[in-house]
Amino acid sequence: MQSSTFNLMVIREMSPDRLSTTYAALADPTRRAILARLASGEASVTELAEPFDMSLPAVSKHLKVLERAGLITRGRRAQWRPCQLDPAPLKDAADWLEHYRRCWEESFARLDEYLGELQTETPKDGGG
Amino acid sequence: MQSSTFNLMVIREMSPDRLSTTYAALADPTRRAILARLASGEASVTELAEPFDMSLPAVSKHLKVLERAGLITRGRRAQWRPCQLDPAPLKDAADWLEHYRRCWEESFARLDEYLGELQTETPKDGGG
Repeated sequence: MQSSTFNLMVIREMSPDRLSTTYAALADPTRRAILARLASGEASVTELAEPFDMSLPAVSKHLKVLERAGLITRGRRAQWRPCQLDPAPLKDAADWLEHYRRCWEESFARLDEYLGELQTETPKDGGG
Repeated sequence: MQSSTFNLMVIREMSPDRLSTTYAALADPTRRAILARLASGEASVTELAEPFDMSLPAVSKHLKVLERAGLITRGRRAQWRPCQLDPAPLKDAADWLEHYRRCWEESFARLDEYLGELQTETPKDGGG
């Protein structure tokens, strides 16, 4: 990576950013489970709270974090305010990680190679 | 998603987990910029601190978060302890997000369709 490109990237990255808000919202197992539930359709707060041993206010707090991160929207219908998944920030989070695919693929390839060498050096008894 | 599958997933997700640690580590622009730098090769703390208007202890604090999340390793050579990227947790974070690809693709397709309808309803003047 060119140094000037890197510095530009650092400057862009240092501004208040949505990506940090997205990752912070994902850094909790309850919030990830709520998103998993909403991936199969909209749900009320009561429905979302049901599988957790958690008070409604505690679940509401998690929903506020997800809403601020733009990961869910709340309906405005008369009797209930169903939560819906907004997957756009998840795409941005995935796009950022995609830049590192080459890194983990190379890393796993090196590990495979190393394990292959180990097997060649210590062949099992038997066979021919 | 079947309810039993969802409940199992919730139980698994509720245990202390590495995915939360990974996303929490990524929820900071300085830490993401450090990972971007390390993607092009190992670097000392001084080298990593250089593009930031930040003290060495402040950078060290970020490195500790990345190290605890398993995203970097520190060398043990005599004169310096270079930092290296360990991309394995990034793959896990990307794999989790991959489950939502269908959601964002459908969401963008709906948006495209809606924009297409708007264009059909308000055709521009001119032409034939």
